[in-house]
Amino acid sequence: MDERLQKQLDFILEIDKEKNIFRQTHLSGHGRRENDAEHAWHMAIMAYLLREYANEPVEIGRVMLMCLIHDIVEIEAGDTYAYDEAGLKTQKAREDAAKEKIYSLLPEDQRGELIALFDEFEANETPEARYAHAMDNLQPLLLNDSNGGGDWTGHQVTAEQVYRRQSKTALGSRTLFEVSDAIIRKNIREGRIRPYSEEQKF
Amino acid sequence: MDERLQKQLDFILEIDKEKNIFRQTHLSGHGRRENDAEHAWHMAIMAYLLREYANEPVEIGRVMLMCLIHDIVEIEAGDTYAYDEAGLKTQKAREDAAKEKIYSLLPEDQRGELIALFDEFEANETPEARYAHAMDNLQPLLLNDSNGGGDWTGHQVTAEQVYRRQSKTALGSRTLFEVSDAIIRKNIREGRIRPYSEEQKF
Repeated sequence: MDERLQKQLDFILEIDKEKNIFRQTHLSGHGRRENDAEHAWHMAIMAYLLREYANEPVEIGRVMLMCLIHDIVEIEAGDTYAYDEAGLKTQKAREDAAKEKIYSLLPEDQRGELIALFDEFEANETPEARYAHAMDNLQPLLLNDSNGGGDWTGHQVTAEQVYRRQSKTALGSRTLFEVSDAIIRKNIREGRIRPYSEEQKF
Repeated sequence: MDERLQKQLDFILEIDKEKNIFRQTHLSGHGRRENDAEHAWHMAIMAYLLREYANEPVEIGRVMLMCLIHDIVEIEAGDTYAYDEAGLKTQKAREDAAKEKIYSLLPEDQRGELIALFDEFEANETPEARYAHAMDNLQPLLLNDSNGGGDWTGHQVTAEQVYRRQSKTALGSRTLFEVSDAIIRKNIREGRIRPYSEEQKF
């Protein structure tokens, strides 16, 4: 077989491993934990269906591809929980090493293209990246809310932590941030997310 | 919340169930069976990376979306194994009922758009649908080959059955059909796929 095609197929087989990288979020209906491939699939469809709420016009095909590949590095680097403060400090170095290793399986042009797309997502400076981050944040919020907030109570997450993460949602979609904000407020009121302090009311 | 956005979010939560629809194919490395969401995620990335091998030019964003949604009906209709002859006879009726039920959660315009895209995939008459079918066939072939053909031996699948399915691959991509053909011949030689008859040599 042609060397280029063989490399593409090698990469395709390698990323099968993403289906074994499990996140902290549980599937709706109190199921098992979700894996990265399922999360990415869900985000890509959400991105398409909700694109009318992006703050700026986006090239939706690029957003979808960004959603699909954004966690491939975790095959090597592992999933870093959004509220794991220690893990977050080493996340970039681990993911940079992983990205070189995995994407180098591809032919040079596709290696460059996918690394650039991943870097664009991480930098969060383009309309596409900001909107893709809104999906990355909203998707687990919807699942967790559907499960009565079990993932927040299990990890004793605070409102400050949730809002810090969701601040990126507003950069990509103010409308979807309002949805997130309403969900967060409801879960604070119902005692599933710890408020900033005992005095603060929501 | 706005009724339109509420409908979109209801649909998004509903399709979470696709992660619990399991296929006959096992993950590479002899893992557990794969689910529909993982399969669709894998297909969409494959479609992007291998688009240079499509027989005809394709709108790749549309192909990717087609890949992502093509199995959503199975949330209601269940997975029909490619070599389950009895199940295949009732598949269309089951999936047609399912598609009305699930896509009707969406606002009318998006309901119509996604049903049209699903129908286009099923009809297999456009370049995008033919190329998406090539992905649908090649993806499990790659996984199964990586596992020493365990899914074929387990189901005592014959070469005739495999070739009947893979004939759709050639309509979408002659190059990728050659890949499939080489994989099938190898697995026949090695006794993992039963040949047409004892006399026929590969």
